[in-house]
Amino acid sequence: MSNNSSQVAIVMGSKSDWATMQEATNILDNFGINYDVEVVSAHRTPDKLFSFAETAEQKGYKVIIAGAGGAAHLPGMIAAKTIVPVLGVPVKSSMLSGVDSLYSIVQMPKGIPVGTLAIGPAGAANAALLAAQILAAFNSEIAKKLHQFRNEQTQVVLENPDPRL
Amino acid sequence: MSNNSSQVAIVMGSKSDWATMQEATNILDNFGINYDVEVVSAHRTPDKLFSFAETAEQKGYKVIIAGAGGAAHLPGMIAAKTIVPVLGVPVKSSMLSGVDSLYSIVQMPKGIPVGTLAIGPAGAANAALLAAQILAAFNSEIAKKLHQFRNEQTQVVLENPDPRL
Amino acid sequence: MSNNSSQVAIVMGSKSDWATMQEATNILDNFGINYDVEVVSAHRTPDKLFSFAETAEQKGYKVIIAGAGGAAHLPGMIAAKTIVPVLGVPVKSSMLSGVDSLYSIVQMPKGIPVGTLAIGPAGAANAALLAAQILAAFNSEIAKKLHQFRNEQTQVVLENPDPRL
Amino acid sequence: MSNNSSQVAIVMGSKSDWATMQEATNILDNFGINYDVEVVSAHRTPDKLFSFAETAEQKGYKVIIAGAGGAAHLPGMIAAKTIVPVLGVPVKSSMLSGVDSLYSIVQMPKGIPVGTLAIGPAGAANAALLAAQILAAFNSEIAKKLHQFRNEQTQVVLENPDPRL
Amino acid sequence: MSNNSSQVAIVMGSKSDWATMQEATNILDNFGINYDVEVVSAHRTPDKLFSFAETAEQKGYKVIIAGAGGAAHLPGMIAAKTIVPVLGVPVKSSMLSGVDSLYSIVQMPKGIPVGTLAIGPAGAANAALLAAQILAAFNSEIAKKLHQFRNEQTQVVLENPDPRL
Amino acid sequence: MSNNSSQVAIVMGSKSDWATMQEATNILDNFGINYDVEVVSAHRTPDKLFSFAETAEQKGYKVIIAGAGGAAHLPGMIAAKTIVPVLGVPVKSSMLSGVDSLYSIVQMPKGIPVGTLAIGPAGAANAALLAAQILAAFNSEIAKKLHQFRNEQTQVVLENPDPRL
Amino acid sequence: MSNNSSQVAIVMGSKSDWATMQEATNILDNFGINYDVEVVSAHRTPDKLFSFAETAEQKGYKVIIAGAGGAAHLPGMIAAKTIVPVLGVPVKSSMLSGVDSLYSIVQMPKGIPVGTLAIGPAGAANAALLAAQILAAFNSEIAKKLHQFRNEQTQVVLENPDPRL
Amino acid sequence: MSNNSSQVAIVMGSKSDWATMQEATNILDNFGINYDVEVVSAHRTPDKLFSFAETAEQKGYKVIIAGAGGAAHLPGMIAAKTIVPVLGVPVKSSMLSGVDSLYSIVQMPKGIPVGTLAIGPAGAANAALLAAQILAAFNSEIAKKLHQFRNEQTQVVLENPDPRL
Repeated sequence: MSNNSSQVAIVMGSKSDWATMQEATNILDNFGINYDVEVVSAHRTPDKLFSFAETAEQKGYKVIIAGAGGAAHLPGMIAAKTIVPVLGVPVKSSMLSGVDSLYSIVQMPKGIPVGTLAIGPAGAANAALLAAQILAAFNSEIAKKLHQFRNEQTQVVLENPDPRL
Repeated sequence: MSNNSSQVAIVMGSKSDWATMQEATNILDNFGINYDVEVVSAHRTPDKLFSFAETAEQKGYKVIIAGAGGAAHLPGMIAAKTIVPVLGVPVKSSMLSGVDSLYSIVQMPKGIPVGTLAIGPAGAANAALLAAQILAAFNSEIAKKLHQFRNEQTQVVLENPDPRL
Repeated sequence: MSNNSSQVAIVMGSKSDWATMQEATNILDNFGINYDVEVVSAHRTPDKLFSFAETAEQKGYKVIIAGAGGAAHLPGMIAAKTIVPVLGVPVKSSMLSGVDSLYSIVQMPKGIPVGTLAIGPAGAANAALLAAQILAAFNSEIAKKLHQFRNEQTQVVLENPDPRL
Repeated sequence: MSNNSSQVAIVMGSKSDWATMQEATNILDNFGINYDVEVVSAHRTPDKLFSFAETAEQKGYKVIIAGAGGAAHLPGMIAAKTIVPVLGVPVKSSMLSGVDSLYSIVQMPKGIPVGTLAIGPAGAANAALLAAQILAAFNSEIAKKLHQFRNEQTQVVLENPDPRL
Repeated sequence: MSNNSSQVAIVMGSKSDWATMQEATNILDNFGINYDVEVVSAHRTPDKLFSFAETAEQKGYKVIIAGAGGAAHLPGMIAAKTIVPVLGVPVKSSMLSGVDSLYSIVQMPKGIPVGTLAIGPAGAANAALLAAQILAAFNSEIAKKLHQFRNEQTQVVLENPDPRL
Repeated sequence: MSNNSSQVAIVMGSKSDWATMQEATNILDNFGINYDVEVVSAHRTPDKLFSFAETAEQKGYKVIIAGAGGAAHLPGMIAAKTIVPVLGVPVKSSMLSGVDSLYSIVQMPKGIPVGTLAIGPAGAANAALLAAQILAAFNSEIAKKLHQFRNEQTQVVLENPDPRL
Repeated sequence: MSNNSSQVAIVMGSKSDWATMQEATNILDNFGINYDVEVVSAHRTPDKLFSFAETAEQKGYKVIIAGAGGAAHLPGMIAAKTIVPVLGVPVKSSMLSGVDSLYSIVQMPKGIPVGTLAIGPAGAANAALLAAQILAAFNSEIAKKLHQFRNEQTQVVLENPDPRL
Repeated sequence: MSNNSSQVAIVMGSKSDWATMQEATNILDNFGINYDVEVVSAHRTPDKLFSFAETAEQKGYKVIIAGAGGAAHLPGMIAAKTIVPVLGVPVKSSMLSGVDSLYSIVQMPKGIPVGTLAIGPAGAANAALLAAQILAAFNSEIAKKLHQFRNEQTQVVLENPDPRL
C-alpha cells in the first residue's frame, strides 16, 4: 500500500470506517494526488500506529488524514508522534451520532494540533480537499485544479437555481 | 516514584490534573495500599506512555488509575498496551465541563476496556475505592478495611439525619 | 442459574437488555470463565436486587457486570450494597440514545464506585474483558489467554491493512 | 424528626442538598402542612432508604419529596418500594449543571413513576406546591390557601408591571 | 367525552400524540379509574385550554395528565390556570428526540409546578400510575389494586430470571 | 406604560429579565421608535397574557418582543393569540445556560411562528433591530436610520482593525 | 425566478433543502403572496449570495426566508448585507439532528439579527406564516386571511376533540 | 498590518477575541514566522471579509487562521472565497460555552473545508502550531524548530514527573 511518491496518507481505525473515508480517496483521485491508505487502529494496533507516525515524515507525507469513531484516539496519537500535519475526520458513531468522535478528536490540548473536519463522509471529502489546498500552496498545478474544482462546483449551483426542477 | 511493592499506579496527563487526582491518593493512603504516582502525557510524552504501559504488568501493578481532560486519550492508550485493568477519571475541562473528557474515555471500542468513573474529584476518589475493591477480592485485609469504610460512611449519615443541623 | 464456581455475575434490568448483554457472555465463554446471568430489576424487583448484592461476596463473585437503560439505577444500587467491584453497562435507550443511561451509571457520588463502559454492545463486551483482566491479575491462566486474545485481535488488523479489500 | 401528623416527607441524598431543598420546607411551612425532613442516601444508607420507603404508607405520608444530584437514584428507588407518590427534585451538580440529575430522575421505566420538577431550588419549591395541590384535592382548607397563594403571586406581578422600577 | 365521575383528565396537544398517550388510558382502564380524554392544543386552541383549566377543579378532576411535544406549553399553561395537580408527558419530537419537549415541560419557574414523567410512552403510562397513586392516598380500593399491580409486576420478573429463555 | 403611538411592545416574564431585555429598549430609543414595556408572566399572570395578546393588534403594535427563561412559554402563547409578529428572546437560565429557554421558544409547532433570536442580551438587542427592519420595510425614515446604523457599525470595525490596540 | 411583484424571497443552501423549504411555498401560495425561490449557497456561490442580498431591498422584498443545514451560514450572511428582515430555517442535518444548523443560525452576534424558526419543515411553514404576519401589519387583506387561517386551524382541533377517532 | 513576507494571516471576528487569539501570535513569534493580524467581522464587515479572502492567495498567505464565537461564520466564509487553507478557532461563547462556535465552524458542507481546532486559547495556539507544521513540510528550518519545540515540550514533562512537587 505504500507508494514512493505518495504525499498524503489516509488511515482509519477500522475497516468499517471505509464507507466514510473513501470520500477522501475519491477527491484525491480527482486531483491526481498520490496517497497511501490503510487501517491503523489506535487501540488494536498501537505499535503500528507509532511506527506509522514515526516514519511519516521521512516517507515524504505532507499531510495525514485520520478517521476514527467513538473514543477516537487515532488522529491525536499520530499527531503526538509526528510533525506532519494531521487532519481528523470524526466518523459517525452508532450511539452518540459522532459527538463523541468529534470531541475526542477536536479537543486536543495545547501543543499537539489536529485540524478537524465535519462528522461523516462530508468531513472525509473535505479533509482531502484541505490536503489538496495545503499542497497547492507549494504546487501551482494543484492550485490550478483547485480553482477549476471550485469554479465547477459554483457553476453547478448557478446553472440550477430552481430547487423545484 | 516507583515503589517495589506498589499495586496501583496513578497517572495523569498534566500537573494541573493533580488537584483532581490527589483524591485517589488520599483514599489509597487511608487503605494502606502502596501506589506510584506520576505525570504521563499521551500527547507530550507518548513514548513514556508506551514504556509505562508495556512494563506495568511486570512491575506488578494490579490496577492503573489514569486521569485526563479534554481529548483524553491517556486511559484508552494505556489500556491498548497492557492487560492490567485501567480505570479512567475524566478531569473537568475548562470549556465543556468534562463531557469531552468523559466521552473520550468511556466510549472505547470493543476489545479494549476502560472502567470509567465520574467526572472530577469524586471520580478520582471512586477510582481508588474501585481499585481497593478489586484488590480486596484477593486480599481479606483490604476487604475488611472496605467493610469498615462502608460502615463508617453509613454511620456518618445515619447519625446526622437532620439536614438543618 | 447459580453456579458454585462462578466468578462473575451478569445482571440486567430487563429481558430486553439481553441483546446488549449477551456480548458479555460471549466473551466470558471464550475465556472459559464461569458466570451466572439473571434479570434483576432495580425498580420492579428491588428486594431481589438487595439480596443479590448482599450475598454476592459470600457467593464468591469477584466481579459483577450490571447493564441497564434510561434512569439506570441497577449498577449503582448493587454497588451500594456490596464491596464486590461493579462494572456498569449503559444500555442504549430508545429516546435519548443512552446518554441518560450513561449519566445515571457513571456520575456516582464519592464513596460508591461503578466502573462504567461504553454505551451498548461494545460496552457489554468490554465489561467482560475488564472482568477477565481483573481476574487475570491473580490468575496466570487467564492472563495468558488475554495476551493471546490481544495478539489475535492485533493480527486481524495487521493482516488486513487495506480497507478496500 | 418524625411527626405523627406529617403528611409529607422530604428526603435528600446529602446534607449539601439542604440549600436546595429548604425551599420545599419554606413552602410547606407557609401552608401549615406538617412534614418530616431527613437525609437518606441511596448509596451510603441503602437499608435506611428501604425501611423509609417500606414504612412510608403506614406512617401516613401522602406525598414524598426526594431531592438528589448526579447519578440521582434516591427518588426512583423510593418509588420502587412504595405506592406513596414520589416527587423528584434534581439538585444541580457541580460538573454537568444538573442534566445528569434530571435524566437519572425523570427517565424512569414504565411501571415506577417519579413526578419530576425543575433542576434546583425552583424545583424544590414547586415539589412542595405540587404536594400541596395533591393534598388540596381532598382538603378544602389547603385548596383555599392555594387559591390565595396563586392570587397573591399574580397580584405581585400585576401591581408591578414596569420592569424599570 | 366528559364523564360526570371522571377523576382524571388526559389531554394532549395533537392527535398525533395519541400513540404515546393511549398508554395512560390503558393503565387507568386497568385500575377502573374514570377519565376524560381530549385534544387541547395550547397553540391552536388557547381559549379551550383556558376554559378547560378554569373548570377542571369544579368538574372534580383530581389529576390532569397533559402530553405535548416540541415547544410543549400545554402542561405548564394548564398548571398556570388551575390548582389541580398537572402531570406532564414529554412526547418524543421528530427533530430533537424529545429533549425540547422535556425541557419545555420540566423547567417551570417557581410558583407553578408540573410533575414531569419520562419522554414517550413509558412516561404516559407512568403519569397514569402516578395519578392512581395520588388517588390511592385517599382511596383504599385503588391502593389495594396498586399493591396488586406492583406484586404482579414483580412476579413477572422473579419468575423469568433467565434472560436467555 | 401604554403609549398611543407605540409600534412595538416589549414584554418579559419577570422583572429579573430586565437586565437582558433593556438592550432592546436601548436600540429602539436610538431609532426613535415608540414602544411599550411591561412584565407579563405566562405562568403567574396568564389572563393578562391573554388580554395583552388579544388587544395587541387593535392597539396598533406592529411587532411584539417577548423575553423569557427556563420553560419559556410567554412568546409562544402570545403568538397563539394574535397575528402580530412575535419575536422571542431566550433569557439565560441559571441551570441550563438558556438551552431550555431556546428550545421552549424556537421549537414551535407548525401554525404558530415565533421568530427567535440569540440567547441573552445580544438576542434582546437583535430583536429590537429586527423589529426596526420590519418597520423599515414600510417606513423610509427608519430604513435610512438602519442604513446609517449599519454603516457606523461597519466603520467602527474598519477603523480599528488591529486587535492589539 | 424573479417576479416583479414578489414581496418574499425564499432561498436555500442546496437543492436537498427543498423537501424542507417547500412547506414555506405552500403557505405563501395559500395566502396568495408572490415570492421568488432559488438556491443560493453561502459556501459554493458566495458572490451570488452577496449580489442577492445587496439587491434585495431595491427588488422590493419585504422578507427573506433562508434555509440551510449544518454550518448554516446562509441566513446570517444575507442578514449582514441587507436590512430586509431575514427569517432563518434550520434544516435537519444528517449527523446532529439540526442542532448544528440551529446554533449556526440563531446565535448571531449583536448587530445583525436573524429571526429563527423551528428545525425542519414546521420551521419552514412557520417562516412563511411569520412573513405573512409581517406583511399583514401593513396589508389588511393578508391580515384578514391570517385571521381566517387561524380560525380554521382552531376549528379543525375543536371539531375533532377525541384523539381516539 | 500587512507585511510583505507574511505567510500566515490571523483574523478574528471581534476585538474581544484577541484574548483567545493572541495565543496564536505567541506561537508564531516563537517560530519566527511572519504574520498579519487584524479584525475582520463576517457580519459587521462582510465586504472586507470578501476582499480579504479574494486577495489572500496573491498576498502569499500559505495559511489563514480565523477565530470567531457564537454563530461563527468567519472561517467558513473565508474558506468559501479562497483556496488558501483555513484553520478555524472556536472562541468560547458566554452562553453556550463555545459549542455553538464549534458546530458553526466544524460542520462545513462537502466542498469547502475548514480545519477546526479546540475551543478557546488552546485551539488558537494549536492553529498556529498546525500552520507551522504545514509550512514545515516545505521549509526545513521550520521543521527543525518544530522538532526542537516538541522535544522541549516533552522534556518539561519528563523532568517533572511528580505531580506533587
